[in-house]
Amino acid sequence: MKEVMAVIRPNKITPTKEALVAAGFPAFNAIKVVGRGKQAVDFQLCANLNEHPEDSSDVLSILARGPQLLAKRLISVVVPDDKVAKVVETLIAANQTGNPGDGKIFVLPVEEAVRVSNGVTGAIAVDEMTG
Amino acid sequence: MKEVMAVIRPNKITPTKEALVAAGFPAFNAIKVVGRGKQAVDFQLCANLNEHPEDSSDVLSILARGPQLLAKRLISVVVPDDKVAKVVETLIAANQTGNPGDGKIFVLPVEEAVRVSNGVTGAIAVDEMTG
Amino acid sequence: MKEVMAVIRPNKITPTKEALVAAGFPAFNAIKVVGRGKQAVDFQLCANLNEHPEDSSDVLSILARGPQLLAKRLISVVVPDDKVAKVVETLIAANQTGNPGDGKIFVLPVEEAVRVSNGVTGAIAVDEMTG
Repeated sequence: MKEVMAVIRPNKITPTKEALVAAGFPAFNAIKVVGRGKQAVDFQLCANLNEHPEDSSDVLSILARGPQLLAKRLISVVVPDDKVAKVVETLIAANQTGNPGDGKIFVLPVEEAVRVSNGVTGAIAVDEMTG
Repeated sequence: MKEVMAVIRPNKITPTKEALVAAGFPAFNAIKVVGRGKQAVDFQLCANLNEHPEDSSDVLSILARGPQLLAKRLISVVVPDDKVAKVVETLIAANQTGNPGDGKIFVLPVEEAVRVSNGVTGAIAVDEMTG
Repeated sequence: MKEVMAVIRPNKITPTKEALVAAGFPAFNAIKVVGRGKQAVDFQLCANLNEHPEDSSDVLSILARGPQLLAKRLISVVVPDDKVAKVVETLIAANQTGNPGDGKIFVLPVEEAVRVSNGVTGAIAVDEMTG
């Protein structure tokens, strides 16, 4: 089994949730995190500035503070090994805009899983097509 | 070492915390998450409806929105390998009601641990009976 | 690749963030968690009591409730294997006071990483000197 963890934009949580359910992965968790990638500047802020020049003093004061931690969502899905590729594909399809800040996906090994309600263990505990 | 992660009902966090301390695992972290398992319907909502039919319009409007992300707690304990079984047992005992939504437990490998205060590394850093 | 996770004091999040950026690790996430180590008493509360004896009734009522979950921050950095030692060193330097409650650092294996914006996978996706 693997844990597939994705750090994504907050406004992508609903389409991501819908995409996972549609792809047959209805079980997942989401957490609010703050984070940043390697970009030193929030390009979205600069883009907003082009559209709303009246906000310039706010935006410049934010940029002057240097790299900020941005609100992100971390979504986590645990699946059998043979489902990892499909989960990753689903997450990319729901989140890829091509811009910096789209996020990252990490795959971590999970050695055991237990469904608390009935004590079932192993891949069957995380395979949503069974049990 | 292993990280034992459990996603549990919010109202089980206090009994779970007490059970872990009583079992000799006083060191853990908890996070608020939202999540869902494979169930398409929140059966607890339906059960409440039987008892409080006056809430039916609220409940039906919630159910109509489809699967919701429910508030859950994620609790994480890192322990030496030989303590994993006891932690899992303790978590099941504190959380098993037999109903869907009791949650899941995952066991992940941890390659290294460091206690920041004194730089101690390895299993001894997470073994609460030592150091 | 590895995920380096540190559970640290809330007031250390800003120096930790600055230290990581300065050390060449600008990409990370942080989450608010509540947690506790093995200490049965919050020694900081007792220390405060020495300095502010007028707070004694508050502090004693907190201590009487037994071990509390304290606010902590969990910070997570995913890096190529050869950067793990430097990240751990950086986290210790930013967080070590020598007192209980300084926190713990855990290193977990990460099998794959994907940068969502361009689909780049592997260590290059988490190496901030590239891409």
